[in-house]
Amino acid sequence: MERTLIKDLAAKVGETVTINGWVDVTRVQGKVAFFDVRDRTSFVQGVVFGKPEVLEVATALKPEYVVAVTGVVQKRQEKSINDKVENGDIELEVTSIEVLNEAQPLPFASDAEINLDTLLDNRPITLRRKHERAIFKVQHEILVAYRTHLVSQGFTEFQAPKLVGGDAEGGAEVFKVKYFKGVEASLATSPQLYKQIMAGVFERVFAVGPTFRAEKSATSRHLSEISMMDLEMAFIKDHTDVITLVTGLIRAIVEHVNTTCAKELEYLGQPLALAPKTFPVMTLREGLEIIKKETGVDKTGEPDLEPEDERFLCEYANKHMGSDFVFVTHYPTSKRPFYTHIDPEQPELTRSFDLLFRGLEMCSGGQRVHKYDELVSRIEKKGLDPERFQFYLQAFKHGIPPHGGIGMGLERLTAKFCGVANVKEATLFPRDINRIDTLTSKESSDEAEL
Amino acid sequence: MERTLIKDLAAKVGETVTINGWVDVTRVQGKVAFFDVRDRTSFVQGVVFGKPEVLEVATALKPEYVVAVTGVVQKRQEKSINDKVENGDIELEVTSIEVLNEAQPLPFASDAEINLDTLLDNRPITLRRKHERAIFKVQHEILVAYRTHLVSQGFTEFQAPKLVGGDAEGGAEVFKVKYFKGVEASLATSPQLYKQIMAGVFERVFAVGPTFRAEKSATSRHLSEISMMDLEMAFIKDHTDVITLVTGLIRAIVEHVNTTCAKELEYLGQPLALAPKTFPVMTLREGLEIIKKETGVDKTGEPDLEPEDERFLCEYANKHMGSDFVFVTHYPTSKRPFYTHIDPEQPELTRSFDLLFRGLEMCSGGQRVHKYDELVSRIEKKGLDPERFQFYLQAFKHGIPPHGGIGMGLERLTAKFCGVANVKEATLFPRDINRIDTLTSKESSDEAEL
Repeated sequence: MERTLIKDLAAKVGETVTINGWVDVTRVQGKVAFFDVRDRTSFVQGVVFGKPEVLEVATALKPEYVVAVTGVVQKRQEKSINDKVENGDIELEVTSIEVLNEAQPLPFASDAEINLDTLLDNRPITLRRKHERAIFKVQHEILVAYRTHLVSQGFTEFQAPKLVGGDAEGGAEVFKVKYFKGVEASLATSPQLYKQIMAGVFERVFAVGPTFRAEKSATSRHLSEISMMDLEMAFIKDHTDVITLVTGLIRAIVEHVNTTCAKELEYLGQPLALAPKTFPVMTLREGLEIIKKETGVDKTGEPDLEPEDERFLCEYANKHMGSDFVFVTHYPTSKRPFYTHIDPEQPELTRSFDLLFRGLEMCSGGQRVHKYDELVSRIEKKGLDPERFQFYLQAFKHGIPPHGGIGMGLERLTAKFCGVANVKEATLFPRDINRIDTLTSKESSDEAEL
Repeated sequence: MERTLIKDLAAKVGETVTINGWVDVTRVQGKVAFFDVRDRTSFVQGVVFGKPEVLEVATALKPEYVVAVTGVVQKRQEKSINDKVENGDIELEVTSIEVLNEAQPLPFASDAEINLDTLLDNRPITLRRKHERAIFKVQHEILVAYRTHLVSQGFTEFQAPKLVGGDAEGGAEVFKVKYFKGVEASLATSPQLYKQIMAGVFERVFAVGPTFRAEKSATSRHLSEISMMDLEMAFIKDHTDVITLVTGLIRAIVEHVNTTCAKELEYLGQPLALAPKTFPVMTLREGLEIIKKETGVDKTGEPDLEPEDERFLCEYANKHMGSDFVFVTHYPTSKRPFYTHIDPEQPELTRSFDLLFRGLEMCSGGQRVHKYDELVSRIEKKGLDPERFQFYLQAFKHGIPPHGGIGMGLERLTAKFCGVANVKEATLFPRDINRIDTLTSKESSDEAEL
């Protein structure tokens, strides 16, 4: 019999159906057996009585057994209705059970509180928990909305290469790869140079993919492998065009997640994100002035925000501006990469911005340098060799439009939507200094919170 | 003035508009200047006359200059209409030109025939050619259709990690990465193990991303970094459920590409792909029998198809079965990876298949082993150590449904849709034994065709 998804059972009362799924909880009371079955869409209680040969199979079922169960969908009696669970008003009166695969007992109760190491050591099975499935359903829907919105705005997706000859941005720690013929390649820390090249081809481009950072920090924010959502757009007047585009993009993501993941956000206990028509925009200096005025702490001379400042400005924007998102603009030239466009009216500052969301920097962006001579000179000023950027520089030699864009971390965005404290919980298979699936040494990965 | 896309000009005859784009070809005849402007959507001819100060700017324009041009959209006179180009019946009567960025002359004519090394050495600018933009527009639309169709079929997208502790499949050549604390990691050759784990979480999953193969072959089919489209689906009865899903998926891609890229396919001189309601399905043995019968060459004892056999079967299917796609099934157990499900009725063969498209293997797939004990024993039989697969094996210990799936190369599929002979032409920034953007040594990358 063709499979019915469990979410569709409520509309099939009185019908005989076959469901596929995993056994969740089982309970045998004399000649009656109860067991919950979950599939990717929902779960339902199965009941066996008066059928000795089926009861025998049901009695042998254990959690995580994979089954095909046939039965008649029945309304529950009034006194058995359970408002607190999905399908709490129906049950499946089971007529046959086929065990598709057996399972050994789980090493912990499926709803146990477990620590991060246990969660990650047992990832293939902890991912099946309702909490984890909710997180990665949200992650999936973020990407659906990201792509759909950008395509509607004339963007073309492209595949950025991950094996690169050098490090785009200098600075960041880079993983080295043994390439052919003794050549040492690197793993890309960003698709930055490629998306700028592509802005010269399709004007508006985006890429989604892994980037790699050999950062030695083990914190709740750091990963060795990050899924980045990048975009770049040509023919802008300055960074404010990018801010406008990103505002529309984020609002589209928020709306889509709110719509498609209402159940998941409720389960995770997360309020819908506040994303007004325009987000607060403040310069770094203005942000630091707010902090000084509100807290008395004077950081107005600082060239960047510290994590505590990001948290404060987000709380402030949430409380006073009705927004969970804040743009902070005009970071100093000295703190930004060579390709960042300088503000011509105050050349010590850049046409750059960060987007903060619920206390965390979510995305970095701005306008880029588009004049060839200026770019070469900026590369030199960072102590880098323009010769190593010849491939990239071709795009600028031969006419690139004014352009800008952003990079946004998928795991951070997911973590903030889902209210999880550690970005690793929003990463399916997180890699860090201590772990590639399993721990890389016998040490525990206990984190020093930085 | 707000930018108008060039594709929308035909509907704005008589109106004053501003377009943004690149200068293509310029021509000055006395007091009249003509120049073509292209943007991501189309191109149009601009005409300057009777405005000395504008004529002066127009006369200084060179190919690839980036401009904002304002003017009035005019119908061309009958004798000036050119049916052979886009917007051949209109022109822009230019009132002002702003140069947004200058450009040096291109190192070759924009429509010159150039060899593969020149094409790739100059990738940032050769990608702007109409031929290259057509290829990567098709690539983008393949992915749009791939994702849209799978989401409509209940699939969840996930991010497969690229830094891995070991090599999933044994066999293939693997790039090594210096990880932390002296640990040596690898670059994933496939997301296989992770998508099987994820089939235990969301039942139907897909991933798009780079995979890496340190293959020393320099051929028209080989790359070091490949964009793979992977999917895995649970609760199947056998590999034929996967074949049915893939047939629907490919038909959705073909239809979407035909619809959205009609102009590009025409420019590339490619016929629409033949994708009937069901594709021909033959066992490897049946395929070899056809070859024997049709050509007299007896390869019926062979365990695999050679490239020439794939080409022959595709020609045969195109001619006699009205399909550009052919499934070949039941490859020998000895030729397939450890996770491939054995056909219980003929255990020397597997429930596996390849999908051929226009002469090339496009995707590999099949049902997977889902019984824990069998999987451990299959790993051992391949001479691999089950201990190294403990993380993956958790999914099987604790109840994984019967499942199967495919991996499909995006560049190969793009190449065959676009009729380009070398898969590198369908890769934005191809990496191979000789090249990471630029050549990694002074040798030319002349290919030995294997």
